[in-house]
Amino acid sequence: MKIAVLAGDGIGKEVTAEALKVLQAVVPKTVVLEVSHAPIGGAGVEAAGDPLPAATLELARRSDAILFGAAGEPGDEKLPFDMRPGASLLRLRKALGLFANFRPAFLFPELADASSLKREIVDGLDLMILRELTGDLYFGEPRGVTPEDGERVGINTMRYSESEVRRIGHAAFRAARLRNRKVCSVDKANVLEAMQLWREVMTDVGKEYPDVELTHMFVDAAAMLLMRNPRQFDVIVTGNVFGDILSDAAAMLTGSIGMLPSGSLGSGTLGLYEPVHGTAPDIAGKDIANPLAAILSVEMMMRLSFDLPEAADRIRRAVSSVLAEGYRTADIYQPGTRKVGTREMGEAVLAAL
Amino acid sequence: MKIAVLAGDGIGKEVTAEALKVLQAVVPKTVVLEVSHAPIGGAGVEAAGDPLPAATLELARRSDAILFGAAGEPGDEKLPFDMRPGASLLRLRKALGLFANFRPAFLFPELADASSLKREIVDGLDLMILRELTGDLYFGEPRGVTPEDGERVGINTMRYSESEVRRIGHAAFRAARLRNRKVCSVDKANVLEAMQLWREVMTDVGKEYPDVELTHMFVDAAAMLLMRNPRQFDVIVTGNVFGDILSDAAAMLTGSIGMLPSGSLGSGTLGLYEPVHGTAPDIAGKDIANPLAAILSVEMMMRLSFDLPEAADRIRRAVSSVLAEGYRTADIYQPGTRKVGTREMGEAVLAAL
Ligand SMILES: CC(C)[C@H](C(=O)O)[C@@H](O)C(=O)O
Ligand SMILES: CC(C)[C@H](C(=O)O)[C@@H](O)C(=O)O
Repeated sequence: MKIAVLAGDGIGKEVTAEALKVLQAVVPKTVVLEVSHAPIGGAGVEAAGDPLPAATLELARRSDAILFGAAGEPGDEKLPFDMRPGASLLRLRKALGLFANFRPAFLFPELADASSLKREIVDGLDLMILRELTGDLYFGEPRGVTPEDGERVGINTMRYSESEVRRIGHAAFRAARLRNRKVCSVDKANVLEAMQLWREVMTDVGKEYPDVELTHMFVDAAAMLLMRNPRQFDVIVTGNVFGDILSDAAAMLTGSIGMLPSGSLGSGTLGLYEPVHGTAPDIAGKDIANPLAAILSVEMMMRLSFDLPEAADRIRRAVSSVLAEGYRTADIYQPGTRKVGTREMGEAVLAAL
Repeated sequence: MKIAVLAGDGIGKEVTAEALKVLQAVVPKTVVLEVSHAPIGGAGVEAAGDPLPAATLELARRSDAILFGAAGEPGDEKLPFDMRPGASLLRLRKALGLFANFRPAFLFPELADASSLKREIVDGLDLMILRELTGDLYFGEPRGVTPEDGERVGINTMRYSESEVRRIGHAAFRAARLRNRKVCSVDKANVLEAMQLWREVMTDVGKEYPDVELTHMFVDAAAMLLMRNPRQFDVIVTGNVFGDILSDAAAMLTGSIGMLPSGSLGSGTLGLYEPVHGTAPDIAGKDIANPLAAILSVEMMMRLSFDLPEAADRIRRAVSSVLAEGYRTADIYQPGTRKVGTREMGEAVLAAL
């Protein structure tokens, strides 16, 4: 089991360190675990003058799974795209062909009160957003800022081919079969031709999964219903841009983005696993950050890349039990619970394992 | 005062009828009110074979303000763009150059419990989303589905020119001056060049309004913060697509989309006013729909197109008082209140006026 650890910037280093300990603790004794570290983001610029150093990409390619922390530095969007720490993640996703981004949003019952939604709306919430990750406005050409009629015009291209929609569609229906057999495809087919094609291909793919219910929803309605009645959803599949927005909104339903993992896969089993949160520069280096999202990313890794559901279940149970025991990092702290730092939370999970 | 009433389809007709009565009741005696009706959407197809008949567009152009209901028919996105009832609204916005879509999200204290968010999160909520309405992916060229390497590829173009961003920017800062002097510009400048230009121009426009605070936020973060802490916002200005999504999410914060009006303006005072909700075919013709969004659209019309703040205030007070008296349509009904139909709600507002 070859794992590349790309901890990156900000709190990425701290949370990844805890997640790695958990990984080492759950991997079956019979497995030879090979862990390598490489710099990415601001750390990549420092080490090799490139946010995604060639050696880092090469290491990632040769791995079975990647544990990613966070990358980016405040204001780095002012740099050219290839030099931006925050863009290193996009380049890595694209280079490895990781087109399927699984972003679960679930609620630990212990944290139901942390949500800004009423308890009766979010209790028992457990949905999966599947976001297409290598297409859409993120990568479409032409793009850029060009002069036109004496002023500048900014352009990006939303672009989806049939085969791109088809493969993320299959991933969605397969995921739904392991859950509640419902797929909601989110688009804007009433306005955008690219999304009409999306809807058409999804409908077509759906015919191969007669046991899974397929519905379609416009993105504006989906944003509303996520707030109104999120438990009606099982798997939501959508494009890169809509998925970026909806998955963050869905994450917020659970009250703490510090709790949520994600996993990105391509056509094989190589996957990149990362917490949904970013670098959080304001709290970096202070042993304050919540490592549970990174730890739960290891759970996803066990499930999706290594087909080790028992190891995954052990992690989930350990996290549940530390929450039940009252351990809380600052972001999920509530009076009456026990406030701990990053390392202490990691130790608590290890102890529970 | 020349008003074009384009009631359209579904519940559009019912709610517009009530709003029109309110309009007639609040217009000052000294004003000559000229009301004309014209078909749009499915009604346009029926009357003239075109969802936006030439005569309807002509009437709209010659008016001082348009009271719009709702347009669209289930599944109409399968028709060619120009023949789609739902697209008639887009064509009308574009033809009249209505680039600034004002979508307030505010909470009547009487309805705080209707929100799916906790009361302490939404109490006193009052924000304005200003959505650019004639640019972006909605109208950008090239667009369409074309064959490429043996398969079909769907394409749309996100496109913003400096002058397009500048004019919506000015509208945002002017609106903020009448409110709490805070503008949050929402973009995706970390990924999209079109949005980098957006951010740059907004920053530039902001320099002309030193008394207004300008912040920038990525759209994914904005979607989260709208749920987490919506009262931190005053005016949010954003592009057409992000605005479509965020304004519906913001609408949902208030608990009933049946309560929310919107207004769209161009460079003059001609405005189009419409409820945020759609045609709701499932409840159309049943005297069930909530007319308050349409009625509050007349309030916006009085304020934005006619500079009649007193007439506007009267409408707002009348709506508050019928809510305080316990009148509720089905969508906002709660035990202990008095359930009424569309017409009865309209009559109650008239009585309160
Ligand atoms: C950091 C940013 C480029 C990235 C994205 O938009 O994909 C992030 O928001 C995410 O969702 O992983
Ligand atoms: C009906 C649809 C085309 C429209 C839009 O996307 O603009 C609607 O969602 C709106 O927000 O007014």
